[in-house]
Amino acid sequence: MINVGIVGATGYAGAELVRLLAGHPEVTLSVLTSRQYAGQPFEAIYPSMKGQINLDCEAYDAAGLCDRADVIFMALPHKLPMAFVPELVAKGKKVIDLSADFRFSDPAAYESAYQPHTAKDLLSRSVYGLCEVFGDQIKTADLIGNPGCYATCILLPLYPLVKAGMIDVSTLIADAKSGASGAGRSLSLVTHICEITESFKPYKVGGHRHKPEMDEILTRAGAGTVDLTFIPHLIPMSRGMEATIYAGLRKDVTAADIAACLSESYGKCPFIRLYDHGLPVDTANVRGTNFCDIGFVLEKTKGRLVLMSVIDNLVKGASGQAVQNMNLMYGFEETAGLSAISFPV
Amino acid sequence: MINVGIVGATGYAGAELVRLLAGHPEVTLSVLTSRQYAGQPFEAIYPSMKGQINLDCEAYDAAGLCDRADVIFMALPHKLPMAFVPELVAKGKKVIDLSADFRFSDPAAYESAYQPHTAKDLLSRSVYGLCEVFGDQIKTADLIGNPGCYATCILLPLYPLVKAGMIDVSTLIADAKSGASGAGRSLSLVTHICEITESFKPYKVGGHRHKPEMDEILTRAGAGTVDLTFIPHLIPMSRGMEATIYAGLRKDVTAADIAACLSESYGKCPFIRLYDHGLPVDTANVRGTNFCDIGFVLEKTKGRLVLMSVIDNLVKGASGQAVQNMNLMYGFEETAGLSAISFPV
Amino acid sequence: MINVGIVGATGYAGAELVRLLAGHPEVTLSVLTSRQYAGQPFEAIYPSMKGQINLDCEAYDAAGLCDRADVIFMALPHKLPMAFVPELVAKGKKVIDLSADFRFSDPAAYESAYQPHTAKDLLSRSVYGLCEVFGDQIKTADLIGNPGCYATCILLPLYPLVKAGMIDVSTLIADAKSGASGAGRSLSLVTHICEITESFKPYKVGGHRHKPEMDEILTRAGAGTVDLTFIPHLIPMSRGMEATIYAGLRKDVTAADIAACLSESYGKCPFIRLYDHGLPVDTANVRGTNFCDIGFVLEKTKGRLVLMSVIDNLVKGASGQAVQNMNLMYGFEETAGLSAISFPV
Amino acid sequence: MINVGIVGATGYAGAELVRLLAGHPEVTLSVLTSRQYAGQPFEAIYPSMKGQINLDCEAYDAAGLCDRADVIFMALPHKLPMAFVPELVAKGKKVIDLSADFRFSDPAAYESAYQPHTAKDLLSRSVYGLCEVFGDQIKTADLIGNPGCYATCILLPLYPLVKAGMIDVSTLIADAKSGASGAGRSLSLVTHICEITESFKPYKVGGHRHKPEMDEILTRAGAGTVDLTFIPHLIPMSRGMEATIYAGLRKDVTAADIAACLSESYGKCPFIRLYDHGLPVDTANVRGTNFCDIGFVLEKTKGRLVLMSVIDNLVKGASGQAVQNMNLMYGFEETAGLSAISFPV
Repeated sequence: MINVGIVGATGYAGAELVRLLAGHPEVTLSVLTSRQYAGQPFEAIYPSMKGQINLDCEAYDAAGLCDRADVIFMALPHKLPMAFVPELVAKGKKVIDLSADFRFSDPAAYESAYQPHTAKDLLSRSVYGLCEVFGDQIKTADLIGNPGCYATCILLPLYPLVKAGMIDVSTLIADAKSGASGAGRSLSLVTHICEITESFKPYKVGGHRHKPEMDEILTRAGAGTVDLTFIPHLIPMSRGMEATIYAGLRKDVTAADIAACLSESYGKCPFIRLYDHGLPVDTANVRGTNFCDIGFVLEKTKGRLVLMSVIDNLVKGASGQAVQNMNLMYGFEETAGLSAISFPV
Repeated sequence: MINVGIVGATGYAGAELVRLLAGHPEVTLSVLTSRQYAGQPFEAIYPSMKGQINLDCEAYDAAGLCDRADVIFMALPHKLPMAFVPELVAKGKKVIDLSADFRFSDPAAYESAYQPHTAKDLLSRSVYGLCEVFGDQIKTADLIGNPGCYATCILLPLYPLVKAGMIDVSTLIADAKSGASGAGRSLSLVTHICEITESFKPYKVGGHRHKPEMDEILTRAGAGTVDLTFIPHLIPMSRGMEATIYAGLRKDVTAADIAACLSESYGKCPFIRLYDHGLPVDTANVRGTNFCDIGFVLEKTKGRLVLMSVIDNLVKGASGQAVQNMNLMYGFEETAGLSAISFPV
Repeated sequence: MINVGIVGATGYAGAELVRLLAGHPEVTLSVLTSRQYAGQPFEAIYPSMKGQINLDCEAYDAAGLCDRADVIFMALPHKLPMAFVPELVAKGKKVIDLSADFRFSDPAAYESAYQPHTAKDLLSRSVYGLCEVFGDQIKTADLIGNPGCYATCILLPLYPLVKAGMIDVSTLIADAKSGASGAGRSLSLVTHICEITESFKPYKVGGHRHKPEMDEILTRAGAGTVDLTFIPHLIPMSRGMEATIYAGLRKDVTAADIAACLSESYGKCPFIRLYDHGLPVDTANVRGTNFCDIGFVLEKTKGRLVLMSVIDNLVKGASGQAVQNMNLMYGFEETAGLSAISFPV
Repeated sequence: MINVGIVGATGYAGAELVRLLAGHPEVTLSVLTSRQYAGQPFEAIYPSMKGQINLDCEAYDAAGLCDRADVIFMALPHKLPMAFVPELVAKGKKVIDLSADFRFSDPAAYESAYQPHTAKDLLSRSVYGLCEVFGDQIKTADLIGNPGCYATCILLPLYPLVKAGMIDVSTLIADAKSGASGAGRSLSLVTHICEITESFKPYKVGGHRHKPEMDEILTRAGAGTVDLTFIPHLIPMSRGMEATIYAGLRKDVTAADIAACLSESYGKCPFIRLYDHGLPVDTANVRGTNFCDIGFVLEKTKGRLVLMSVIDNLVKGASGQAVQNMNLMYGFEETAGLSAISFPV
């Protein structure tokens, strides 16, 4: 058993970490921090967990945290982690950061989308925690930049196909849709039920900050510099994310080639479920789970591939993948804490 | 490990049994039957469980079922179980029936709400599976009539208070509200999203068939014959049920008395969570769990008590309580298979 | 044509007034005020009305408002109107106030639920704007206290029956349910889509401030002092309100008596639709309209009446009734501006 | 005043026609037909219109219909209209058909997506009722093929740009999303609230029958044969449709060129609202209205245009556009019956 601390435990990603880790057979939840709710019982903030989580929220205190936790999940807004993480890593702690602060190799790419980076030297040490793609590096890492939700949903289907040279990267378009929990627990008219009911809309159409993250990783796949067209949309629901991705194929790639490439890459991955050609995916099928379901259609006469993928943005798109990263880092069963059966409805 | 069969596995209650039992540490799912989908993989009907449940649906066959299952959950519409259960019980199987067929002691009460009963002799043998109230009898039973969802939500807060003589039963009113999954998976305009969105409505206001079930059990509490006023309503959502119950108090009963009675009755019950006077409950807090949360307000000058209780109608109101009944019958940990941490949102 | 000003035009009630009055054949919208958005085009705040409403929001200025408006709708939070209204009334303007500030006859009742009243002398002058009940007084009024949404939904079915002496007022219970738009446009976790999805809950169970308003009006009906048991609940949707009301009947009152009393009271009212005994109502049927649909069930053996009523909380429960009040005050057709056909779904 | 008949009045498109035409200043609703509900009052099927629509549903009878109606709206499933329309047109009636039966010029295109066409000779006579594009022909037509919802939402933004030669049609991709009312009132698990809540999914990814309709019209714009990539998705809500369209630009086309082209084409159209570059659209803004809101983003370095458009699928995508077609055919004000102000929320 290892001891685990969660920094920022009362946001949605933090609370989802609490849910998953409380049921994890190899860990003990030992520290929950919350700026806003320090001193209050966690279950007072999330009464659904009444009687199930018996910890109080604490103010952040690096020394106390390091004394009582072996691995630390950072579930804070961007910018805060880069102030805290250097000390934690220096003290020998393993850190899994759910913000963007340690996702980039290139500080300039980070700074183009966020703000000046104050812990640049750690970027070469951190590993991008897309488990099914960078698992080998993750196993030996002590600092993980846990991928963004959109990045997870879009990179998982695309990365192996780009790497295999099947796709003309200049044609890449990702039309993505997210439930409202991706916007977090902070208050905004955007997530007011009266404004979002019977509303579907694109947003941040001029540039979403997950795009540079995806461009960097896809470029790393080695088929040329990627400058993705990426349009996110907001779905009137809480959990779930879908991406429909359009890509021009390199000459003569067939549906069988696509299926084979995905199968070779992911056939043994417990959280990737591949669908046969032409079968659609559904966010409802992955709700509350760490699965990424991937389907595709190939339009032969146009040489165009349509990929479709779905995740639960709070699980595979955030906290579930973070737990999966921990499992890889510690050599636990990859599915430990993540094997709950899905709701039928 | 015991072997478990589910008859009617593809309805919502059946599929929820699959979800819960697949994660139960003491059981092996061995038989799933479905009239409609016999021969098809269960995961083809519920793709959310793709890769998690590897059984095919079968046609109902009593002999094969008895060969391969120790305990049998019946998740069929009313009337069918009374045709099947006598044979199963005769073969020494334990049966937990989720329909109304074995909930009543008095066949006349059953027949007033449903249809002629063809297995009346089993009614004296069956036990009403309201776990927190009739646990002692459940432990030695081999046939359980699993309570209706409304009955569970309303009887749990009321039963001990009526039994303790605190309530004037002639004043009892239950205003109950249910999510649409209570109507099941069969098709109806009532559950068409376009008809139910932005709709809230009472229904079956002239008489709902769960009422005689509640009247019989509450009368059994010994404070006089109960003839409940019961108005159910439909909430535009999938899972969750709330009951607000109004009751005139016997003279001089105080809020402290109410709290003490509930606490004495349920203080050690893992699935009942009691709220302090004046604190409201919320269906979201019990979603996906086997909890029943109970709150209350006492209006002193009027001598009127308001009880509020919430359950997940598919879990504590159906499949979860059925599993809890099995746990009691077999002496398993009461929470086995039912201890998942709730979703934060 | 009369000129109309709306003070607080960018809250939900204010914006709904804009919608209704922009389509009213007898009025010209001349002034829209908004503290928060002064100087901005109204359509920038409500882009659904882009190209339909060509007014800018202004800061509140009593002199300018009185110059350009004949009748003024106040759609502000409680407490603000009592500071502004005396000056407007003194200048001879007709005022329809949607807050609670001018709903009470008894200042003490107001103060028990809100705060000290600073314009008490106007309370005897203001008329409670429940159109179907107090229409005669409304016609000659120049200051209207527009009823609360819960009060409208509960008083309309109850008032004539209480007045007719059919009901034992000591037994009155109102179990009411509201869509989230009743909480307004201000930000709160309560209306965050992730918190309200799949949530149904009672709230303010220890005392909601609409209760003294209902007690005062029902007491005025003359059947004794009323101390209503009132439990409000929140429905996971935007618009719509339902009340299920339980009442003990005076001896020998029949279903025919109830139907006759309601029909005599409301048979000629264009916005009340009466349902036959035993037929349920539905908030979806009144969405976007000024209708109040009323149904009932009489439980003969218990002498108990169940009334059910539905309104759109933003229309009949607020802005629509305010427009209806204006129509009565000016002798316009009662349905002017309020005759839109309902959406089928 | 003209007399209007609606054939198939109880489906969602038919009922929406009832709503719109009942409020139309130039028409009298005279005949409503319904196979399923013949003999019943229309308001019994749509109780939201209780007291507002006082017509009974009738069985279809061509002679009676022609006696009592000048213009006939056909709101039937595909295939039925081509059996009925020839007789109506022969009798000199004007017909607006909401099915696909009279949308195509090329019978082969129709037959590829639907079934054999039995009234091919009428195809050259019928006019494709995309009002803002083919208004001149509509004015003199007596048979209108009212466009599909997806076709309306996608063709309106695209058609003028394709016609102006700004777009490389080989690159066209339309990622479209629809509320569930597009699937109609017939029962299906797809629209069961429990299945669609918290679900977002692509569907008919191998080929949707609206695609040939769009291909034919876009090809008619004269920039080459169009073979659109079209992926529809289902949104967990009732009304509303959004399309995000991706197109490669012909060299040197600027954002100003796009804006100018759209403005020249639609600047005087009362139901098209153009958004400035980079501003997103929202289905909530057009709910219940006949508007189509259009926005765009131009990605200069890639020469790629992103168009975004929203409609209410039941109004501009079906019944509203049908009424607009009638207005054009009769020389009524184009906005007659369609000028309702939108709901703020």
